[in-house]
Amino acid sequence: MSSSALEFARQNHPRFLEELKAFLRIPSISTLAEHQADCRAAAQMLVSELRRIGMENVSMIETKGHPLVYADWLHAEGMPTALVYGHYDVQPPDPLEEWITPPFEPTERNGNIYARGAVDDKGQVWAQVKALEAHLAANGRLPINIRILMEGEEEVGGEAIEAYVASRPDQLQADFALVSDTELFAPDLPTLCVGLRGMIYTEIEVRGARTDLHSGMYGGVAPNPFVALAQIISRLKDENGHILIPGFYDDLIPPSAEELEAWRNLPFDEEQYRTSEVGSRQLTGEKGYSVLERTWARPSLDVHGMPGGFIGAGAKTVIPAKAMAKVSMRLAPGMTPQKSFAQFKSYVQQIAPSDVDIDVRLIHAGNPCLVPVDNPYIRAATRALQQVWGRPTVFIRSGGSIPIVGDFAEHLGIPSVMMGFGLPDDNLHAPNEKFNLKNYELGIASLIRFLEEAAH
Amino acid sequence: MSSSALEFARQNHPRFLEELKAFLRIPSISTLAEHQADCRAAAQMLVSELRRIGMENVSMIETKGHPLVYADWLHAEGMPTALVYGHYDVQPPDPLEEWITPPFEPTERNGNIYARGAVDDKGQVWAQVKALEAHLAANGRLPINIRILMEGEEEVGGEAIEAYVASRPDQLQADFALVSDTELFAPDLPTLCVGLRGMIYTEIEVRGARTDLHSGMYGGVAPNPFVALAQIISRLKDENGHILIPGFYDDLIPPSAEELEAWRNLPFDEEQYRTSEVGSRQLTGEKGYSVLERTWARPSLDVHGMPGGFIGAGAKTVIPAKAMAKVSMRLAPGMTPQKSFAQFKSYVQQIAPSDVDIDVRLIHAGNPCLVPVDNPYIRAATRALQQVWGRPTVFIRSGGSIPIVGDFAEHLGIPSVMMGFGLPDDNLHAPNEKFNLKNYELGIASLIRFLEEAAH
Repeated sequence: MSSSALEFARQNHPRFLEELKAFLRIPSISTLAEHQADCRAAAQMLVSELRRIGMENVSMIETKGHPLVYADWLHAEGMPTALVYGHYDVQPPDPLEEWITPPFEPTERNGNIYARGAVDDKGQVWAQVKALEAHLAANGRLPINIRILMEGEEEVGGEAIEAYVASRPDQLQADFALVSDTELFAPDLPTLCVGLRGMIYTEIEVRGARTDLHSGMYGGVAPNPFVALAQIISRLKDENGHILIPGFYDDLIPPSAEELEAWRNLPFDEEQYRTSEVGSRQLTGEKGYSVLERTWARPSLDVHGMPGGFIGAGAKTVIPAKAMAKVSMRLAPGMTPQKSFAQFKSYVQQIAPSDVDIDVRLIHAGNPCLVPVDNPYIRAATRALQQVWGRPTVFIRSGGSIPIVGDFAEHLGIPSVMMGFGLPDDNLHAPNEKFNLKNYELGIASLIRFLEEAAH
Repeated sequence: MSSSALEFARQNHPRFLEELKAFLRIPSISTLAEHQADCRAAAQMLVSELRRIGMENVSMIETKGHPLVYADWLHAEGMPTALVYGHYDVQPPDPLEEWITPPFEPTERNGNIYARGAVDDKGQVWAQVKALEAHLAANGRLPINIRILMEGEEEVGGEAIEAYVASRPDQLQADFALVSDTELFAPDLPTLCVGLRGMIYTEIEVRGARTDLHSGMYGGVAPNPFVALAQIISRLKDENGHILIPGFYDDLIPPSAEELEAWRNLPFDEEQYRTSEVGSRQLTGEKGYSVLERTWARPSLDVHGMPGGFIGAGAKTVIPAKAMAKVSMRLAPGMTPQKSFAQFKSYVQQIAPSDVDIDVRLIHAGNPCLVPVDNPYIRAATRALQQVWGRPTVFIRSGGSIPIVGDFAEHLGIPSVMMGFGLPDDNLHAPNEKFNLKNYELGIASLIRFLEEAAH
């Protein structure tokens, strides 16, 4: 078992950190058109770095949206091939005023690095690249064959990469995918994620009067799109948090008794989680299911924003002609985006008040997935993690969506090793996103070891 | 009966129109802090014009907000005194993209002048000033005594003028108020408004988790403030449009059988109103009441906007830490803002889900009012209107709020003659607000005649 790569990483860690900061300074917000050039700059930085460390066939692949980045190194004859995935795009940083330091000025504080994208996913992408660099620099080669495919549209649905993976399975042939976009279950607890929820993100648009109207003149006769949306939204879940869309739960595959038992043994304190992580008066959600079941193995439904009307300070007495609700649903394994959206749309149309016109649109979708734990790459990963962290690995799921994992399974027929190093309180998609500096360093070490173990 | 003032107005009408355009070019949006200087500029233009036409004691009265404008002419011995009221502030123009011509570039089109504030209320204010100018220029005097009090905060609740009226009743002594901020019931139908709804404008703020959270990780356990707001809003009215706030209708004074009969005889085609004025699939509101009853004599409840969360294009999977609903209620005569707000707040707190924190705030309030029709000034107004329009006057109410009318009744003990010249489709508070050019001219003539008739 070589340790020269590990030693290289140890010696070069200060540089690895400065490079990450430079990567984080690029505001590669994929949802906002005005940041298109920034997304390209982030992709270009990846391309340059992959070339510099000795990867081959490094290229930027143009798409209808932000470019993909491809590279490979295929000289480990007889060894398996890993397809390394990550994304260089980030979520919008708003609300800006809640950031302690600016989202695109990475700042070290309390043993963390704070920046939008620190953990989701630029920090983890950079850790993957640094693990490859350590092997190439220390040994002149990689223990296994590697293909890299990075995208810049994970936060907007990842359509380009899905299309690319679907259309070019031959060029992406691999034995497994390595995805670093997940988290440790708890600090210092090595973790592999083996299940993800899918999602559908929708918009409900409601139109009442032809134009905005004065609520004095027309209050009492003009339909109010927000009131209609409230009526619709209030009928999507019952008072026990159960989603009321007919047939929504029909195809759900419940976790096995063994898996549920393992989840019960995880270090988890619900009251601690409520107060320090969520910070709400109560937790909410489906009665009769634990927090881990509710977030990992049950669907959920959220409203993210309700555009329309007057949202400034003070009073404007307008009955808006239209209003919208951005509504998403997380899907549990077994459920499919197509069927779930059809059920949702049909139900919303059925419960919509008759005085308004309504459109229900699908903005994007991702498949849920379950990874079988009895495959050699998951076993290699657990050995690597044991060596670096000194503890047995726990298998968890994530409530989030990494649609690409489903795409890899569907189009390439390969499982994904989801080995990530975030923490549950890293504020991803929220103000003050961070990445623990120790986890960045041990993450790189874990990835170095994993490449070695995967060669056995 | 003098006609020299009318003749002066006729000859000077082109100038009257150009002056109005200059007044409309000032974006005196009282709700937006960045337009504070514009509000002052509009007040200053009024001050200059009132001095120029020969009014006395013209002054700008400083307040905590936008200034009041006062002027008087008190040399009609033995004659009654009118307190002339209007407001120089306007509503915000958004959504800007729906204006055919820019809101602050007044444009003549189809016999109308289009601009924000054209009819609400700058056009009608200018008509009042021009009626006074016509008398002063043609006759060197006014037929009755006049005090003018204009405000710049009508669209934000009118607190400054209310405080001023409440604290200085002696300096404002008058026999009646003349308010031109209402409309004709139909084109060419001279109309006096004798009833107004009051209003309370509120904000419901809901807070769930401490910070914004990722809907993948926390969907199913973190309270969603928009879902909570939807639950609250959906319980404010029942399926028949009846407001469910306990006790809300208790103090309502229903219209007399005679008044209801007069309303039934007004030229009103509900289907025409629905298609050409409201433009919605159906009309909404309380079952069992006519459109005129619903908008004039029944309370209503509307949601104007729901700030918070993500409202940009695309998808951001955030569970927002907080969200808000801007909710207003129109109050029918008999109801009081204080009691109605207390009932609303208590009910909202009672029906709010237990997993969120909630604040209910009153942003502003205005009393409803009813004007007795058997007073000499209403009779004088009907004579004046008959002379100018050649038809008998109809008595209507308005669903809108003119809180100052209630303040005049309460603090000065005087009735208001609400003589306005807008049309039902003038788009006040909406894009493409307009004022009919003929109504501007006949409005000035009606006001000239009214001052003469009030002297009899």
